[in-house]
Amino acid sequence: MASTIVIGGGDDVSNAFARRLAQHLGLNYIEAKRKIFPDGESYLRIEEVDIELNEAIIVKSMAPPQDKSIVETLLLLDLLKEKGVSKVTLVVPYLAYARQDREFLPGEAVSIRSILRALRRAGADALVTVEIHKEESLRFFEGRAINVSPFSFMASKITVEGSLAVLAPDLGALRRAKEFAEALGAEFDYLVKRRDRVTGDIMLEPKSVKVKGKNVVIVDDIISTGGTVAKAAELLLSQGAESIIVVVAHALMAGDAASKLKKAGVSAVYAANTLPLREPGLVQHIDVTPLVAEKVSEVL
Amino acid sequence: MASTIVIGGGDDVSNAFARRLAQHLGLNYIEAKRKIFPDGESYLRIEEVDIELNEAIIVKSMAPPQDKSIVETLLLLDLLKEKGVSKVTLVVPYLAYARQDREFLPGEAVSIRSILRALRRAGADALVTVEIHKEESLRFFEGRAINVSPFSFMASKITVEGSLAVLAPDLGALRRAKEFAEALGAEFDYLVKRRDRVTGDIMLEPKSVKVKGKNVVIVDDIISTGGTVAKAAELLLSQGAESIIVVVAHALMAGDAASKLKKAGVSAVYAANTLPLREPGLVQHIDVTPLVAEKVSEVL
Repeated sequence: MASTIVIGGGDDVSNAFARRLAQHLGLNYIEAKRKIFPDGESYLRIEEVDIELNEAIIVKSMAPPQDKSIVETLLLLDLLKEKGVSKVTLVVPYLAYARQDREFLPGEAVSIRSILRALRRAGADALVTVEIHKEESLRFFEGRAINVSPFSFMASKITVEGSLAVLAPDLGALRRAKEFAEALGAEFDYLVKRRDRVTGDIMLEPKSVKVKGKNVVIVDDIISTGGTVAKAAELLLSQGAESIIVVVAHALMAGDAASKLKKAGVSAVYAANTLPLREPGLVQHIDVTPLVAEKVSEVL
Repeated sequence: MASTIVIGGGDDVSNAFARRLAQHLGLNYIEAKRKIFPDGESYLRIEEVDIELNEAIIVKSMAPPQDKSIVETLLLLDLLKEKGVSKVTLVVPYLAYARQDREFLPGEAVSIRSILRALRRAGADALVTVEIHKEESLRFFEGRAINVSPFSFMASKITVEGSLAVLAPDLGALRRAKEFAEALGAEFDYLVKRRDRVTGDIMLEPKSVKVKGKNVVIVDDIISTGGTVAKAAELLLSQGAESIIVVVAHALMAGDAASKLKKAGVSAVYAANTLPLREPGLVQHIDVTPLVAEKVSEVL
């Protein structure tokens, strides 16, 4: 009887993540073969699927183009189930569509609900993902689902010197800043909007912590277009912060995010290795596979 | 109690198709609002979804980028089901991934199986599509599913003069050529590969019909990159065909298909309005919504 195998989902990021995950778990690793037809359709094949597989861990990140990654995940899950794999654990380093997690306006599609249901119904028995936007969204996956929060782990891999202030861009992200700060014994806070009494402008500033002369770490789940973080960085520097670094789970870096962040004075961005590394001059990856391996072993 | 409504899936082709379908069925038409976020994720909203909807027909073509169209269809189906629509009929003018309909090599994902299962599980109670590559693939959709063959209808909309030969590019496509030819009372045949006795080259020629001096119509389900049809056109012209027109359900026209076909001597391509109209100088759309409306009314 064959033991659990780890399968790379066919793209470079998923394959690299899967290979390292397999090493940490002491399991064998195989790779889906992937190509794209001239009309744009994906093709996937797991050559080894006819060997006796009882359990499989499949790694597939939902990197842009997100819809292609999602469809490829559906193809792979359906293939494994069709071949009789009894338990499939899906590891999704970056789970797309997580920010549309409720009906903000009447009649909106709740995208993350649709995606999680589709993954479950296609054959994912358990799901492990890194830093989903809102953990409650995992209720839409009707099976065992784990959200891996990477900030404590990431804090242990980053050297920040001098006097430190760790900030969340808003109250909703405070849990992340707290986790990062507590691992380093640093103070933490979140940014609030205040109206300037003289000019009437809306200002962004820490609720109580003073940033003057401090090295500031902004912690958030994701950088998409970089707008929120760039604005925060500019204001904190104008309030006397010594330097700004950013720590996120997912550096999507859509559009001109990199130049926006550099222009705003951000020195460095640290991100988990859940997406392709864009802008390597600015962004550095921290390999979170040791942490994810720990969590995956809980559902095996 | 509200009656059945027809919903356009948010993109131009699906909306136009849905609007005409609604007219032919005498039903009301509404449209999904669609936008794409800067990171590439789709957003969909059906503002009217909170009115009492019992039955809905949703039209969504799987035009390139196919994966985006598929994910958007999943979002829309899930939204309608979540809102309590009891019966959803999904009309897919062009169904992508239909050519990967079996395991050609061991371990291949059978893409059309995965897609049809995902659509069904997301909430499609019935499915109507135009000219799927192989009709048997519809067994993967575990519900009522109809394939609409458009060739007899299309024959009634095209004027071809002179002596006519209708040809399928291979035996598997013969049914399509037969349907088109019989509607016009023309002769039909399919192309076979023959080895030239002198040069040893593989030749493509009609099994028995002679094309010399005839206006040839090549009938197939789809033009993707145009390779098959271009090759056939060149050979038929070299065998004395007077002219070549092409009739397909789906003119995908990937890559340089248009220039390939023009160079091969194809005078015109007629396609159903299942995809965006590319290369309007060469391709002409035939509106098949009257025919699809007839078939849809069978499942209502």
